[in-house]
Amino acid sequence: MIKVAVDGMGGDYAPQTIVDGAVEAALAYTDIDEIVIVGREDAIKRELKKHKVQGGQISIHHASEVIDMGDSPVKAIKKKKDSSLAVCIDLLKRKEVDAVISAGNTGAVVAGATLNLGLLPGVTRPGIAITFPTLHGISLALDVGANIDPSAHHLVQYAIMGEAYSRFLLKKKKPAVALLNIGEEESKGTEVLQDAYRMLRDSGINFIGNIEGRDFFGGKADCIVCDGFVGNVVLKMIESIIEVFVSLVSNEIKKDFLAKIGAFFCQNAFESIRRQTNYEEAGGAPLLGVDGVVIIGHGISSARAIRNAIRTGANMVENQVNNHIIEELKIREQNHHTGSANPTQKPTA
Amino acid sequence: MIKVAVDGMGGDYAPQTIVDGAVEAALAYTDIDEIVIVGREDAIKRELKKHKVQGGQISIHHASEVIDMGDSPVKAIKKKKDSSLAVCIDLLKRKEVDAVISAGNTGAVVAGATLNLGLLPGVTRPGIAITFPTLHGISLALDVGANIDPSAHHLVQYAIMGEAYSRFLLKKKKPAVALLNIGEEESKGTEVLQDAYRMLRDSGINFIGNIEGRDFFGGKADCIVCDGFVGNVVLKMIESIIEVFVSLVSNEIKKDFLAKIGAFFCQNAFESIRRQTNYEEAGGAPLLGVDGVVIIGHGISSARAIRNAIRTGANMVENQVNNHIIEELKIREQNHHTGSANPTQKPTA
Repeated sequence: MIKVAVDGMGGDYAPQTIVDGAVEAALAYTDIDEIVIVGREDAIKRELKKHKVQGGQISIHHASEVIDMGDSPVKAIKKKKDSSLAVCIDLLKRKEVDAVISAGNTGAVVAGATLNLGLLPGVTRPGIAITFPTLHGISLALDVGANIDPSAHHLVQYAIMGEAYSRFLLKKKKPAVALLNIGEEESKGTEVLQDAYRMLRDSGINFIGNIEGRDFFGGKADCIVCDGFVGNVVLKMIESIIEVFVSLVSNEIKKDFLAKIGAFFCQNAFESIRRQTNYEEAGGAPLLGVDGVVIIGHGISSARAIRNAIRTGANMVENQVNNHIIEELKIREQNHHTGSANPTQKPTA
Repeated sequence: MIKVAVDGMGGDYAPQTIVDGAVEAALAYTDIDEIVIVGREDAIKRELKKHKVQGGQISIHHASEVIDMGDSPVKAIKKKKDSSLAVCIDLLKRKEVDAVISAGNTGAVVAGATLNLGLLPGVTRPGIAITFPTLHGISLALDVGANIDPSAHHLVQYAIMGEAYSRFLLKKKKPAVALLNIGEEESKGTEVLQDAYRMLRDSGINFIGNIEGRDFFGGKADCIVCDGFVGNVVLKMIESIIEVFVSLVSNEIKKDFLAKIGAFFCQNAFESIRRQTNYEEAGGAPLLGVDGVVIIGHGISSARAIRNAIRTGANMVENQVNNHIIEELKIREQNHHTGSANPTQKPTA
């Protein structure tokens, strides 16, 4: 029995694309037993009526308030107790659902999940992970914005969580983990990175060392660990790159009659690249380290993006990724001297 | 009379591509009176013999030692006094040349220039700037690797230096300067960035606020200011992006017969994009803030890249960019309360 709650009011095109995406997911995925759309009942009902598939897997859970994109995250989550996001997280906390998907205010999702769900045993800071296409398949990068000034210990936790995600969800056998740095040598980068390098080398995971920006899309690393600042800059760059290239190609092709004909024949190839590099296909970004499955969608999420984010949430539940993370952290922390910045949060099991 | 010294032994393909590039520059640029190739005389002579244009604008200045890519920058520059790089910088210091170009060990170039030339009045840390193509012309970004943990004051200096470079060398009338951050609001990012934001707002330059990774190639900002860590990651990503896209496009096109034909017609357009995004055309990266014109080339510099880097160095000399930087720093520091981390280095003029 997998139940997923979707923040019906979160995202630039909510509730429409959220409801559309939930319906798409309900039609596509028979392993998901229920999709609960949380938000203003009237608005969500209105959207649902546009679809033929009412009832069945889809249900509505009313929430009267909305957290806006511009709201201060911590303030909003504390004040708007009946917001669609706060109610989603509450349903997850009370185990009435197994996963939450929100394309709303990212800061509020992180704050809400951290404050209300708490962290997994062994975790001191959550991190947002994204998957992205490389020349050799899909890779994972984290953190991309939850923690802009991480300690070495936080980075090590990100590595362990990302490794577990790569193994148990992306089904990679022995994921190669790397630190994003400005050079390959151990001595490169900030002290925090140098410390993290040493800790990771001794952690027992398949740590392949530092990689540079030029290796980001090469696929050498299955899991790239970085601070949330550089991760966020890079993430947003990736999102824009395809558009930039499409513009560059269009500009060039406009200048040249033969190229116009050529582009016509190439359009399937271009479309395929666009699809590979499109955030819609990525399926949202898991917030790793919180005690529950939380998937963050892009603010501009389309129905397709929401559908894929729901898929990712269900995958995390089915593959018990959080249990594996707890296990991995326990093993690595105890056996491989990664240290702990917060001993009170060590595994209690 | 413009005289340029080129580090003949610096770079992965030195001395060959360096000599080739120097010869290309000598043939192409009549405003450059002399190009001094510094390094092992025999090796450079051997390369020069392959060209018909001996003598004339090109001369050789012997230096017996070589700083390798793997050498520790500060140690190497202090120990290898007769290295091609140290001798180049020495020629610049003694005003026997007006500019130095090196595609060697970047850290050693930064250390050598900083230690031996000193900094311009008003500057507390040098920064490496790069130019890159956007959807609306060429933009500048700095720092991309000299200073991975800058203070707010350093960032403000980078902004002022980059603004002057954009104005007096890239000939932009009122360059828009932005901070690279994880959100547009003043409250985003680290404390250092928040402080820099406030200082820049009051500095009198055309500061347009924060921009995110997705705006990097949009051309909204003429000059993007960032710390050397994120700048370096982004720089190396940019360099690899075109290769990644070429690979993606080739893979897709191979699958599809029609696309193969299409690609044939598109090849001029593709080639034009490759040229626009190629580091070779960028003309090296000026090291701004040191007391002298120093251009850093990519380690893998081709002859064309070296030629363009020589062009950039000569442009900096002709446009008196460093004098303008001194002036700008004096005005901004005195009138706009950007503060100074090191009052002893304030303008003495």
